[in-house]
Amino acid sequence: MKDIFCKIIDGEIPSTKVYEDDDVLAILDISQTTKGHTLVMPKKHCGNILDCPQELMHKVFDVAQRIGQAEMLVFGAAGVNILTNAGECAGQSVPHFHVHVIPRYLGIDPGFQITMKPQDTSGMDLPRIAQQISENIK
Amino acid sequence: MKDIFCKIIDGEIPSTKVYEDDDVLAILDISQTTKGHTLVMPKKHCGNILDCPQELMHKVFDVAQRIGQAEMLVFGAAGVNILTNAGECAGQSVPHFHVHVIPRYLGIDPGFQITMKPQDTSGMDLPRIAQQISENIK
Repeated sequence: MKDIFCKIIDGEIPSTKVYEDDDVLAILDISQTTKGHTLVMPKKHCGNILDCPQELMHKVFDVAQRIGQAEMLVFGAAGVNILTNAGECAGQSVPHFHVHVIPRYLGIDPGFQITMKPQDTSGMDLPRIAQQISENIK
Repeated sequence: MKDIFCKIIDGEIPSTKVYEDDDVLAILDISQTTKGHTLVMPKKHCGNILDCPQELMHKVFDVAQRIGQAEMLVFGAAGVNILTNAGECAGQSVPHFHVHVIPRYLGIDPGFQITMKPQDTSGMDLPRIAQQISENIK
């Protein structure tokens, strides 16, 4: 069964398009956690960023970058978050690779928040953790 | 004055390296909001993703993707968040472009959370918002 983004790409479900080319589609997120909240996705189905071919991933981030730049310009955003969630437990709700571009505005309480709480690393062997990742990079 | 990541890149401040090549450095984030939380950055200084040359940005995301894949494999992560914050009001704490790679684990309360609260869009002219962004994409 097609995911909802494949249906949007195929024109079976309406969306508010921000950008489109042969490989990439960008649409407004219906939640608009901030004004201009946009989703950028490859037209070819990939489940998430981890299984997206590099060249296609580059095209997606190129569009995300350009949309972020445009939003700074046109809406006077003071910043932007660009992110992608891979896996349900990471908050991915649609199993089709998409990048959120979320402009941020000074003095406006956003519907979008990132919380990073430092952990107690005293019991962690950081060099070992780094080595384990390093040895498994392909 | 050099930012802290330029100092790390130049070897003036120690770090726990995960990956390094001619253009890109990846280190463990000292906060370890989840086990394996890694920062990927270009060695050449860019303030944030919005002013990073495309080709260099591609290299950074290539490494982020590969590290995410490695973390799924080696730590049994169930997902991963890959994100970058541009601008202080977006949560950027070091003014040197860096991408967070944050593995996520089932059943573990993380030090990292993304909150997306849908906004009331009934008063928003979504087609107009999309058009404004679209017309300013360069």
